[in-house]
Amino acid sequence: MRILFENARILTLDEADHEYVNGSLLVENGRIAYVGPAKAFDAVDRRVDAGGDVLMPGFANAHTHVPMTLLRGVGSDLPLQSWLEDAVWPLEDKLTDEMIHWGTMLGIAEMLRFGVTSFLDMYAYEDVIAKAVLDSGIRAALSRGMMDGNGNGESGMAEARELIENWEGEGDGRIRTMVAPHAIYTCSGAYLRRARDLADRYKVPIHIHLSETYKEWEDCRKEHGTSPVRYLQDLGMLDVPVVAAHVVAVDDRDLDILAEKGVCAVHNPTSNLKLASGFAPVPDMLQKGIRVALGTDGAASNNNLSLWEEMNLAALIHKGESLDPTVLPVREVLRMATVEGAAAMGYDKVGALKKGNDADMILVDISGPHYQPIRNVMSHLVYAGQGLDVRMTMVQGRILMENGEYKTIDFDKVVHESARAAAQLDS
Amino acid sequence: MRILFENARILTLDEADHEYVNGSLLVENGRIAYVGPAKAFDAVDRRVDAGGDVLMPGFANAHTHVPMTLLRGVGSDLPLQSWLEDAVWPLEDKLTDEMIHWGTMLGIAEMLRFGVTSFLDMYAYEDVIAKAVLDSGIRAALSRGMMDGNGNGESGMAEARELIENWEGEGDGRIRTMVAPHAIYTCSGAYLRRARDLADRYKVPIHIHLSETYKEWEDCRKEHGTSPVRYLQDLGMLDVPVVAAHVVAVDDRDLDILAEKGVCAVHNPTSNLKLASGFAPVPDMLQKGIRVALGTDGAASNNNLSLWEEMNLAALIHKGESLDPTVLPVREVLRMATVEGAAAMGYDKVGALKKGNDADMILVDISGPHYQPIRNVMSHLVYAGQGLDVRMTMVQGRILMENGEYKTIDFDKVVHESARAAAQLDS
Repeated sequence: MRILFENARILTLDEADHEYVNGSLLVENGRIAYVGPAKAFDAVDRRVDAGGDVLMPGFANAHTHVPMTLLRGVGSDLPLQSWLEDAVWPLEDKLTDEMIHWGTMLGIAEMLRFGVTSFLDMYAYEDVIAKAVLDSGIRAALSRGMMDGNGNGESGMAEARELIENWEGEGDGRIRTMVAPHAIYTCSGAYLRRARDLADRYKVPIHIHLSETYKEWEDCRKEHGTSPVRYLQDLGMLDVPVVAAHVVAVDDRDLDILAEKGVCAVHNPTSNLKLASGFAPVPDMLQKGIRVALGTDGAASNNNLSLWEEMNLAALIHKGESLDPTVLPVREVLRMATVEGAAAMGYDKVGALKKGNDADMILVDISGPHYQPIRNVMSHLVYAGQGLDVRMTMVQGRILMENGEYKTIDFDKVVHESARAAAQLDS
Repeated sequence: MRILFENARILTLDEADHEYVNGSLLVENGRIAYVGPAKAFDAVDRRVDAGGDVLMPGFANAHTHVPMTLLRGVGSDLPLQSWLEDAVWPLEDKLTDEMIHWGTMLGIAEMLRFGVTSFLDMYAYEDVIAKAVLDSGIRAALSRGMMDGNGNGESGMAEARELIENWEGEGDGRIRTMVAPHAIYTCSGAYLRRARDLADRYKVPIHIHLSETYKEWEDCRKEHGTSPVRYLQDLGMLDVPVVAAHVVAVDDRDLDILAEKGVCAVHNPTSNLKLASGFAPVPDMLQKGIRVALGTDGAASNNNLSLWEEMNLAALIHKGESLDPTVLPVREVLRMATVEGAAAMGYDKVGALKKGNDADMILVDISGPHYQPIRNVMSHLVYAGQGLDVRMTMVQGRILMENGEYKTIDFDKVVHESARAAAQLDS
């Protein structure tokens, strides 16, 4: 299968950072066989005339809880504890396998519509989620959120192991796995160590919520006499690859440790603001060389799964917070939303548009008024772009969404079934 | 002319705050003749089956500089002074009447696409802008930005007066005017007083940039021994109706004065963040009863003219800044983006969807994945919606944009001419 993109404005987002104004890109057997200036190829199965539109790496949603898409809009504008205890948890208790399936399909449909080609998930029911990932064609790193504070420590640990054994590398490598102790305040120290050992044994990364709130930081100081980051370090948790979500409440020493240990921080600006957690110190992270990716968190604290708004927020809020308009320039933000996320999930050959990489990419319509005049396309994408600008989403060389139509998902059925599930949940 | 909307989810956004799930709305001669539960009407010229989509008041962009749309993407991520002096001003010096026309048409096209039905502008060349407003069918309050610090005080004042005399009330009342002394640091005290007298004489409001930056506050303290707000109060400027843009650097006493004087503050979250001005204290403003509208500022400091992102930011950033997730709930934010802005511009019969008001409204497609499940539609609009969801924009009962097609604008020509103008500017 050979697909040729012609007349595209290609943003490679690799180290060389090429922008080909009239570029060609050839996809062959799921991989990028050529990317560069306009070039003719024959014997192709399909030619896509990009018409000057932007061809760029797909977005990587590096922290989410995809079945929670079913809970979109629940408990809007409530205080955090009330949002969790009165709005979210009672609904989560009612979730069935079937609801998880439809919530996941809805989330995947939304992500594909807005150009997300990979996501990192933490939830239960990961078998159900893995099947949806397999069928839909999207790429995902899956992790079974586990905690022993609730008495389900053993079953969670067992399911985490089964997830790795059953799903790691499935779907031609599209599915990866991680070990996900939920957070330091829901897992005991001994349990965290066991999670680390499991990750180490299978050579998969740890995925954990870390220093999400100032409360977590203060509680940790009271209970363990140190910060959440240093507590994890003391437990040896940072000696394996770690993807840490949120990382809002950290001090300078914490950041030095994260940099030294090569931890990837996933910035979730919408969720951190909506739940009033605060501002992650992303400019400091970048200055210290910490790798930062972007995530949406679950739809219930967002309310969408679009990386476009995360990019926009990431580019804006830290300028306002630091009173420095030069922090988080657009190229850096675009890389955080794409290649850094893919790297965080452990995909070697995914991300930048370069020869040999998997063809995970999107075509963005820049004919709308908000892209005119076309002058600084990276700036337009980050500051003016929207999810609905995406006209094609491709994973591993396979077109999964084009002009709003899904190739692998019966969207009408997803809408119908998720509405039915929501009605059951809300009743 | 009678247009009937049927099967619409109507958000009235008036004091009664109705949400009609299967509502009807009848437009007759540009005004709303009926709004409420499903009702049959005959002898209508057009029936619009909303198919369950949202019908709501159009957005009011309460502070912008519309010709600057031509400068979109200029000087992205630069420090403020360098952005102004090296990127923006040299280009503004080259602007011609023709460029102003195309920049304005591009801005109006963008606003109509994203559901903006009225805007409050401050710039020069307001005659050119007024003609574009008249022809395009959008609603606008126009003001000639004026300053005497640059030696053009007299011509600016004269043009401000001519703008009022020539354009106030034109286009069946669509065009309103204001008097716009640019800011306290570009206008002398005597000039500010003359601006107030002009506004008072013609009974139009003042439109001014106020306390946009901490620097403005500190400079004012040094030069006038008081804050910008109190300086204006001492000059008697706040004894006429005032629309104040930005209002970032204010103390508690300033806010009390703004509340007492009935000043409308226009919050421009994107611009304040992008230019690293900081966070306007909007929760405090609302608590003190200050009326707050939303604006995009010019596209060069945004980069778009969509109120959708301003709503999203307004709803999010103050939760993060105050660490309180209950501030700026979605209903309040929707009202700020619509009815409060229309009121700030001086339109009495525009804003909420109620009988007798002008039919300035939009139809929003909520069939996309990001609105599913449809549970809390206000929350979905503010936190998940995007400009491209708008499927119809109507001003004074006239459809100006439908399904991406413009009824009064040759969009292809606008794109072509604005690209040509940008090329001239950038050369």
